[in-house]
Amino acid sequence: MGTNPMNEHIVKSYDEEQRRLLNETLRMGEMAAAQLESALDVLARRDDKAAERIIANDEAIDALENEISHDVMKLALRGPMARDLREILAAIRIASDIERIGDYAANAAKRSTALNLLPPLPQIVGLQALGVLAVKQLRAVLEAYRTNDVDLAQSVRAGDATVDAAYTALFRELLTYMMEDPRNITPCTHLLFIAKNLERIGDHATNIAENVWFLVRGEETLPPREKRDLSNTVT
Amino acid sequence: MGTNPMNEHIVKSYDEEQRRLLNETLRMGEMAAAQLESALDVLARRDDKAAERIIANDEAIDALENEISHDVMKLALRGPMARDLREILAAIRIASDIERIGDYAANAAKRSTALNLLPPLPQIVGLQALGVLAVKQLRAVLEAYRTNDVDLAQSVRAGDATVDAAYTALFRELLTYMMEDPRNITPCTHLLFIAKNLERIGDHATNIAENVWFLVRGEETLPPREKRDLSNTVT
Repeated sequence: MGTNPMNEHIVKSYDEEQRRLLNETLRMGEMAAAQLESALDVLARRDDKAAERIIANDEAIDALENEISHDVMKLALRGPMARDLREILAAIRIASDIERIGDYAANAAKRSTALNLLPPLPQIVGLQALGVLAVKQLRAVLEAYRTNDVDLAQSVRAGDATVDAAYTALFRELLTYMMEDPRNITPCTHLLFIAKNLERIGDHATNIAENVWFLVRGEETLPPREKRDLSNTVT
Repeated sequence: MGTNPMNEHIVKSYDEEQRRLLNETLRMGEMAAAQLESALDVLARRDDKAAERIIANDEAIDALENEISHDVMKLALRGPMARDLREILAAIRIASDIERIGDYAANAAKRSTALNLLPPLPQIVGLQALGVLAVKQLRAVLEAYRTNDVDLAQSVRAGDATVDAAYTALFRELLTYMMEDPRNITPCTHLLFIAKNLERIGDHATNIAENVWFLVRGEETLPPREKRDLSNTVT
């Protein structure tokens, strides 16, 4: 088989297509991470123009997801074997998580333009810290995907509890500001939603980590994971 | 070819597997719709026990998504042709949207137990109306998927603007209650998040509608769609 030049040509081309798929998905992830960082920056700098650019950029991420779907179709039509198929399935799922992360970044940018019509908020500091955690998780899991590193993927999964705890603390803090002064309610509601989105980005990073596990280890079940987002039960 | 009994056996079995995949995905959708209805009911009746059942049931939806992924793997390994492959890709994407809808229903149930520790809220009425709209969209899109009805799928897509408009109105209403009395802030924040989740369920129904289009029509581009969720820009 290995000596059949025709066959080798097909195999090589499949590998090339597969590498292209991985690179596209990683590029999509990098775009989402950059969007997220820009959104946090724009929130801090109160820059409407930059916010609009972030919102417009989200289309490029969506377009890349379509391209990935298209490549997945092409690859799947070639009847891949088990490991290759896991590669394809992981790419399509990871692309879908990244697409959501991009949406959350664009949503934060959108809310920042509303916040810019109101006086500056000191509460933005806690949000930035949560945002930094979310970016860190995202970049780590993309690296785990790039290098097929299950240990790194596992540490991202474990790290989500820290994101959840930071979110719950910020949630409670924002509620107290809202209670202190009704004028804080509208701006802090936007911050609450942005905070929730950052917490959700942590969940999507965890999903990606689980797909890296699935990709490398196959159907093996994952070890259990701690959850610390207790904001749902705040009274 | 058609006279080869061996070949026919393979073809028939593939169709059976594919029908199984569709039925599993529809069953998953039905479970999510039932969970959503129960969550709305539990919010109205302030029933902690029923809320706990909804939260526990979410695992069954997640398990079904895993089963669907497994079946998708098995089918894809058989090297399907273009339309069959679209069927598979649509199933995996639709299952992922349904999984999120199930999460949102469970999250509403979780928040209802927190709300039950506080005095009853009259604002629950507007939330129920939004919930009814979300359930309607979900059931319609599942029917469109079951019957491959692109027109019905298109009407679900168009209907999302109504969900968005209802959400934006409710969002503004809830903010006024929070401003009127600081004691409303914590409970109304939970309602705000539940409302946002219902709006997101509308978005997932729209995603499913777009997958029905993709499934039936292939890569043809979709007509543009109106967006009416203006809550991101409320000041």
